Amino acid sequence: MKIALLGLGTVGQGVVEVIHENKESIAKRAGQSIEIKYILDLRSFEGEAISHLMTKDFDVIANDEEIAIVVEAMGGIEPAYTYAKASLLKGKSFITSNKELVAMHGAELLEIARNNKVNFLFEASVGGGIPIIRPLNQSLTADEIYEITGILNGTTNFILTKMQQEGRIFEDVLKEAQALGYAEKNPEADVEGYDACRKIAILSSLAFGEHVSFQDIPTDGITQITQEDMVYADNMGYVIKLLATCQKQDNSIFARVSPMLIAKTHPLAMVNDVFNGILVKGNVIGDVMFYGRGAGKLPTASAMVADIVDAAKHTGTNIISFWNREKVELKDKEQVKVNYFIRLKKDAECIESIIKEIFGQIEEVVSPYNEYAFITNLDTEASFTEKISQLSDLVIINKIRIDK
Amino acid sequence: MKIALLGLGTVGQGVVEVIHENKESIAKRAGQSIEIKYILDLRSFEGEAISHLMTKDFDVIANDEEIAIVVEAMGGIEPAYTYAKASLLKGKSFITSNKELVAMHGAELLEIARNNKVNFLFEASVGGGIPIIRPLNQSLTADEIYEITGILNGTTNFILTKMQQEGRIFEDVLKEAQALGYAEKNPEADVEGYDACRKIAILSSLAFGEHVSFQDIPTDGITQITQEDMVYADNMGYVIKLLATCQKQDNSIFARVSPMLIAKTHPLAMVNDVFNGILVKGNVIGDVMFYGRGAGKLPTASAMVADIVDAAKHTGTNIISFWNREKVELKDKEQVKVNYFIRLKKDAECIESIIKEIFGQIEEVVSPYNEYAFITNLDTEASFTEKISQLSDLVIINKIRIDK
Repeated sequence: MKIALLGLGTVGQGVVEVIHENKESIAKRAGQSIEIKYILDLRSFEGEAISHLMTKDFDVIANDEEIAIVVEAMGGIEPAYTYAKASLLKGKSFITSNKELVAMHGAELLEIARNNKVNFLFEASVGGGIPIIRPLNQSLTADEIYEITGILNGTTNFILTKMQQEGRIFEDVLKEAQALGYAEKNPEADVEGYDACRKIAILSSLAFGEHVSFQDIPTDGITQITQEDMVYADNMGYVIKLLATCQKQDNSIFARVSPMLIAKTHPLAMVNDVFNGILVKGNVIGDVMFYGRGAGKLPTASAMVADIVDAAKHTGTNIISFWNREKVELKDKEQVKVNYFIRLKKDAECIESIIKEIFGQIEEVVSPYNEYAFITNLDTEASFTEKISQLSDLVIINKIRIDK
Repeated sequence: MKIALLGLGTVGQGVVEVIHENKESIAKRAGQSIEIKYILDLRSFEGEAISHLMTKDFDVIANDEEIAIVVEAMGGIEPAYTYAKASLLKGKSFITSNKELVAMHGAELLEIARNNKVNFLFEASVGGGIPIIRPLNQSLTADEIYEITGILNGTTNFILTKMQQEGRIFEDVLKEAQALGYAEKNPEADVEGYDACRKIAILSSLAFGEHVSFQDIPTDGITQITQEDMVYADNMGYVIKLLATCQKQDNSIFARVSPMLIAKTHPLAMVNDVFNGILVKGNVIGDVMFYGRGAGKLPTASAMVADIVDAAKHTGTNIISFWNREKVELKDKEQVKVNYFIRLKKDAECIESIIKEIFGQIEEVVSPYNEYAFITNLDTEASFTEKISQLSDLVIINKIRIDK
């Protein structure tokens, strides 16, 4: 079987390496040998072993009937979207690690694939090498999934882990992450939660079969998390993680990305460093968790090549359940119930009695600083916002959602 | 699609419940509705909703051409093996949660299924509801798997967790496990590691494609683990878990079930209570872990119904990679390298210098008791046995393998 690879960056090179390295076992599993016929890249890679495969012209690939699978490792919406559509319409399966593309156009591309009896596969777009898309589609089929909560971004998890375990501040660990190549020069997509947001949009669309638009998901990053927050967390038996979640409650869907305090006994609490963890809850299976490297050249390539094998094994059959193209209306985020951990300055007189008057029953937290800290009762975001607005901004040091 | 269920015990009842409860979503995923036409059981269940489905005669099922899938939840080798063979030969897919059956006859039944273009599926035989067989077959296809290590028995994990967290002794927690229905009246299969042994035999056969016979796997249970061992473990930053492992080294396969000391930072260290965790290592993907409930009515039924959906979707196509029927010769267990944690009585004079003379370089462990404790250097089991034989049995309190 002949395939074409779009993009020879880090991940693309990983795909070339894996197909070469594990050639025999892959052929055994795919039922036929897998051969790269073209690599599309603007660079020529002259003198390298793959230079004879290089092309700059996508039409050569699109018009070659021998090409059954197109593998995209370029990133970004365009030209990936145009290439994906053209490939599927030409009856070629399309495999991608591109979460922007899947979050934005997944529903449409799945539908085109279905109509053309080919496959649009994207295991690598969420959780890197961790099998999660395929298990959701093919293993958890007896269940009604009602929640997926995950640590979906390795960069922020690395930063939070180091802050927690080594007592360092955000900016300092961010620099280390950049030096190690875990974080981009412009780290916004990671630290503001945008990357995790796209990934949870994909997972919720697949799990609930409805199109969850990533633009609708309330998203907070980790830039406000301080060393003092970590000390509080540790004292309480908690850790702070950037969690992406989607939940189905009373037939309405809710999704959110936000830093959360979770107990050290929570299955996701042990997911440290650049690792990802994805906790899935079903009405039959209970809790299942998938854990592994959420990014990187080889883990990502592993997922993409597994998709190639699956596409090769299922020539002429569409295997992935599609999600509805119509956008689902998410539950109003103000109506979602939540507990907050809050730190206040002690300047104000009678702060304790004021707080109890505003918030009602609370759980006080012993502070190692000259602060007043407490955990609110479960209440809606709207009610919390109203209550906290009664305090001066000056008195609020930080507020973080907590999983009680 | 019409199916037959063999056995209406706890798991069988779970299958009936799940098929009823999630009828619509299952039909959507299977591409057709799934209907139970027969239930084979010696009891009649008169007056119950399913009483009209009951039969005591397997031939009725075998000879009904409408039955496409037979689902076995009886346990034990016979008559399950006879029924499995007969069903497959009649062109019916066969689904089972029966680890004894799969460990003993899996290779043969997979071959018969393959020859008859049907499927022999057994997701529920390892890890209960946790998707592991299907991911190994369908997701980790880009990788050469070189190790699988897991906590595969929920009962022993419950016991070890309680011993560790609550400072209780083995016998006491075993009684609680029996009262809770986690352990059998005769707990041998669990506490002696036999259950985990069959499960790791299945996983290694699948991962390496060669028939690993469970009888060949060296298996130690947890009955020798004491409260004092737990105290040492905790002091060293370790926990004690019953690990089942299989590894491929230099083209030879090794498997073992044994209690092990693992660091609290090890991904399997957080797998507590009745949960199972399975860590898979591949040459591309690195480490991936699967976590969830390893037993119980509904989790097991979830895996079996997912197998039913898969079989329904793949009528006429064999989807599971088979393993070689020829038994593989496992690596000589005496040649496997290992570290031990050892506790000795201090009675003997000059015990420390004797130990250093026998074992060479060791790592001493501070003892909270009147004992001498240390960790050996990495060496073969044979060499360790020879060294430890130089000590009187009377002086040895305990020895446990440790993952350093």
